[in-house]
Amino acid sequence: MSINSFGRLFRFATWGESHGPAIGALVDGCPPGLALTEADIQPWLDRRRPGADPLTSTRAEPDRVRILSGTYEGRTTGTPISLMIDNVDAQPRDYPADAPHRPGHADQAYDAKYGLRDPRGGGRASARETAARVAASAIARLVIPEVGIEARVIEIGGEPEAARWPALIEAAREAGSSLGAIVECVATGAAAGWGAPVHAKLDAELAAAIMSINAVKGVEIGAGFAAARLRGEDNADPAHSGGITGGIATGGPILLRAAFKPASSVPLLGVSGRHDPCVAIRGAPVVEAMVALVLADHKLLHRAQCG
Amino acid sequence: MSINSFGRLFRFATWGESHGPAIGALVDGCPPGLALTEADIQPWLDRRRPGADPLTSTRAEPDRVRILSGTYEGRTTGTPISLMIDNVDAQPRDYPADAPHRPGHADQAYDAKYGLRDPRGGGRASARETAARVAASAIARLVIPEVGIEARVIEIGGEPEAARWPALIEAAREAGSSLGAIVECVATGAAAGWGAPVHAKLDAELAAAIMSINAVKGVEIGAGFAAARLRGEDNADPAHSGGITGGIATGGPILLRAAFKPASSVPLLGVSGRHDPCVAIRGAPVVEAMVALVLADHKLLHRAQCG
Amino acid sequence: MSINSFGRLFRFATWGESHGPAIGALVDGCPPGLALTEADIQPWLDRRRPGADPLTSTRAEPDRVRILSGTYEGRTTGTPISLMIDNVDAQPRDYPADAPHRPGHADQAYDAKYGLRDPRGGGRASARETAARVAASAIARLVIPEVGIEARVIEIGGEPEAARWPALIEAAREAGSSLGAIVECVATGAAAGWGAPVHAKLDAELAAAIMSINAVKGVEIGAGFAAARLRGEDNADPAHSGGITGGIATGGPILLRAAFKPASSVPLLGVSGRHDPCVAIRGAPVVEAMVALVLADHKLLHRAQCG
Amino acid sequence: MSINSFGRLFRFATWGESHGPAIGALVDGCPPGLALTEADIQPWLDRRRPGADPLTSTRAEPDRVRILSGTYEGRTTGTPISLMIDNVDAQPRDYPADAPHRPGHADQAYDAKYGLRDPRGGGRASARETAARVAASAIARLVIPEVGIEARVIEIGGEPEAARWPALIEAAREAGSSLGAIVECVATGAAAGWGAPVHAKLDAELAAAIMSINAVKGVEIGAGFAAARLRGEDNADPAHSGGITGGIATGGPILLRAAFKPASSVPLLGVSGRHDPCVAIRGAPVVEAMVALVLADHKLLHRAQCG
Repeated sequence: MSINSFGRLFRFATWGESHGPAIGALVDGCPPGLALTEADIQPWLDRRRPGADPLTSTRAEPDRVRILSGTYEGRTTGTPISLMIDNVDAQPRDYPADAPHRPGHADQAYDAKYGLRDPRGGGRASARETAARVAASAIARLVIPEVGIEARVIEIGGEPEAARWPALIEAAREAGSSLGAIVECVATGAAAGWGAPVHAKLDAELAAAIMSINAVKGVEIGAGFAAARLRGEDNADPAHSGGITGGIATGGPILLRAAFKPASSVPLLGVSGRHDPCVAIRGAPVVEAMVALVLADHKLLHRAQCG
Repeated sequence: MSINSFGRLFRFATWGESHGPAIGALVDGCPPGLALTEADIQPWLDRRRPGADPLTSTRAEPDRVRILSGTYEGRTTGTPISLMIDNVDAQPRDYPADAPHRPGHADQAYDAKYGLRDPRGGGRASARETAARVAASAIARLVIPEVGIEARVIEIGGEPEAARWPALIEAAREAGSSLGAIVECVATGAAAGWGAPVHAKLDAELAAAIMSINAVKGVEIGAGFAAARLRGEDNADPAHSGGITGGIATGGPILLRAAFKPASSVPLLGVSGRHDPCVAIRGAPVVEAMVALVLADHKLLHRAQCG
Repeated sequence: MSINSFGRLFRFATWGESHGPAIGALVDGCPPGLALTEADIQPWLDRRRPGADPLTSTRAEPDRVRILSGTYEGRTTGTPISLMIDNVDAQPRDYPADAPHRPGHADQAYDAKYGLRDPRGGGRASARETAARVAASAIARLVIPEVGIEARVIEIGGEPEAARWPALIEAAREAGSSLGAIVECVATGAAAGWGAPVHAKLDAELAAAIMSINAVKGVEIGAGFAAARLRGEDNADPAHSGGITGGIATGGPILLRAAFKPASSVPLLGVSGRHDPCVAIRGAPVVEAMVALVLADHKLLHRAQCG
Repeated sequence: MSINSFGRLFRFATWGESHGPAIGALVDGCPPGLALTEADIQPWLDRRRPGADPLTSTRAEPDRVRILSGTYEGRTTGTPISLMIDNVDAQPRDYPADAPHRPGHADQAYDAKYGLRDPRGGGRASARETAARVAASAIARLVIPEVGIEARVIEIGGEPEAARWPALIEAAREAGSSLGAIVECVATGAAAGWGAPVHAKLDAELAAAIMSINAVKGVEIGAGFAAARLRGEDNADPAHSGGITGGIATGGPILLRAAFKPASSVPLLGVSGRHDPCVAIRGAPVVEAMVALVLADHKLLHRAQCG
């Protein structure tokens, strides 16, 4: 992972501010000859799109992706694939340049780092950046057709019972509050051997990929924090490993969980803008995206070294 | 992070098998002019060393480090620093080449990946590899003298009360079992601004670094998994962020926790070799090491981009 | 240098095919706070632009660059800068999908590598890709305002006398032929100390950067190939070093030369399309661009390690 | 290429000072299962070894390589391979700490960069560093058994006639002078398709690799600088391309040449130490080494992306 992109062989970088003209991703190292048009990417974006679900943000972006390079007659050519999504619903007037730092947000950190920042809607720190990741991951999925990836919310506001979530969320919205949640992801079909023993462990890379999603504050693989309460004789059960031992995939299902904190910009605190009462709902497709991107990269890495 | 090393500017790679002639680390990108002799490294190794504590493994390695390059008259020259630690107590006879795969270990994964492996004591998957990381981290600490890093075990076998740990561990040892644990680490003095917004978030890099330690199955920053049960108005409390927002250090203390599973190779299961009833005890210095290595790298990265 | 981009800290990647909808560059690692608008980039593109000079290709691209991200109110924010240039004059009909491989071109190599290629105008192998490099280099120049870079053609078709070049070129054009040339570049103001001793020597990086330009078949630093005919006592003259010793800048002018072969697609050989009788004329700004990109990166690298 | 190592998948880093206790290389990303013992490396070192030829330096290093990790029972395991060569004949007394900067050497550049340097025998700038590269390249050759690489001196002091070289060299030695030379290298068997179109062109990577060798001031591929004097119709001849078009191997022989300047530390200038009258003689095996290292890396890269 470079400072400017994710991945080693199947790599991508994202660009764009929440309220600038567009956002995008540059995908490189993609194998040639894969069937790819916008229609392979759009459904994943639609699934992540804000406004699609009444329980999420009211920002209504069509999120139409365009492929600007790297394909010819519907197939990847092996050269860089440039993806662009226009920002249609940008409302920079929501964010005056002299807006105070929003508590719990990255505003202050950006100022500390760069001495200036784009104050419009969180800039790079906006959840909107993840649309570009989802677009890139649609290509990653073409590299690993043998892999199935499914992420879902398993707990909201401490409540594992899904039937009670709509009421919880509605109450939070009315109270001007927001809720944290836990997302679980299972990936099946990753071949035994993907990963590396020390410096690019598959679990370490997944941890970085998941922790790089906005609002994620914790990651666990397999038994995770519960493993800290197991005994050695229990731990030999392969179910606890989450499909990875010694940094290398065992061939079994890869299981991980991510803890999403609640969004901090709640009307309660007098911060304007359009926000979700539970960002993790839209975070689940992003978790899937990051897992797909890591696995595609490791499939190529394994093929390179081990043939 | 490349597949072969950690870090971007302050980088290191480790090498060596548990029962080969030696292990080592190659540290590169170190600033010139820092005072460095073996005496700056040895105390950190002594602290991690097996056999130093009656509650840990009985393998007794002196772990004497030698600096083979990159210094002149006790100062770093800016060129690669090669560190070597001889394996003195290697006992390869404990590990016959035709030994079966130990349940819960990486043996099977290595075979799946490489088609062969060094069967002696876990090879690269041995906890011994972490001695090389600790050695490298002693140099990282010289790069960030303004930073204090302290990791400690806060829970063993689900028990937060330290007074009860010795009995727990002794019982586990006698039963031929082992215990998981949680390690917490606090780093103070990291400047506001270290980190990056999307592709090299400080929390993502720390997560990868910690998850790359043997036996770690979960990582959390700040409130971590508990953040999933917070509400937005609570989350604005900076204490919950763990010193990092939007991937960038806030200047406050950086707080993280790692979940260590129990070692799987317990006599109960008929696996021979010398092992610890609670690997997390010796894991705490390794957590510190990885945090130091990540922070040294990000200090240089920040200086490069932001002057 | 990764397979997908140039540079380590100041990095860029280019994308786009000669006859697709657009080409572009993604620049990352740029320091924050630099004054940057399209007006800082456009003049460099205009200089490189085909059709500007009667002696070059007749393709008439306006080459208007747009900045899509990474700036706010005319200043860089430190986040990725996405640059896009629309392809206005694309004429894909010149290049049927079943066109035979053009001798001396990369067509056959692309097919060998990828099993397919974009047959339109050379795709990624087109000289058009270099427009994206020139755009990125305009930003690099802002990072190294203390550095002056000047490249010029010093020999065309073996002829060092510039007064005779117009006739030579016109004769080549009429004959349906093309001419090779040598470009020389001098960079002043690079600080003593930029570079690295072994694995990222400044001269090695410059050699890679220059050799990556289409049609370049040779690179030399300082005395270059003539140094092979010097004696040791002559060589001590610093003028021969070209401003770099041991991979590190001395502080003196950096001098390099690039050999451009003639374009192979000449009407003589029955290859259609719009081409230059001497590509090196438009190659000189690209040489400057690559030198600027390498030096900006090394300025940041040096600052990172040596403060 | 990172600042700390060469290569992407098949990577290596070298360490060690000319007059320290040892030098070495760390090779990573090597495929598993290759037969490898010290006997596969030693012959290449012997060929490069100073003192082997009466016409070269009088420093007599046995250069015995040891493999410290990454193999088991004579086969590579896929984990990092640490190679070490003890410095036996180090004579640091030849190089007092307060020695003046030697003209034409890197002494001054090192001081400018780092503020200090190891004054003993050139430190990292010593030709001795290349022994570690040669050792690493012996492993690279195992990755590309289908490739034959042969480098030879084709010109010394401007003289292409080999029969006259001994007298030339002897005269230079007696006069306390030294001679530059040109080395040519041919690699056969590299598969069509190795390389990349823009950001990791095979010719660009070879140029960097060769230019990173001490004393090299120029690199050319195929027709090289002579290509600047060709016409388009001549250039279509595949012989001129040197086996690479558009950054990608054509499958034909890869041909390159390197210009070595004469060593600057000649007794004439009052600089002591043991030096060669023509460093290029010992440079030829290093050219081969670098070519092998680049090709092994690109074989793996191509396999990763294109299967």
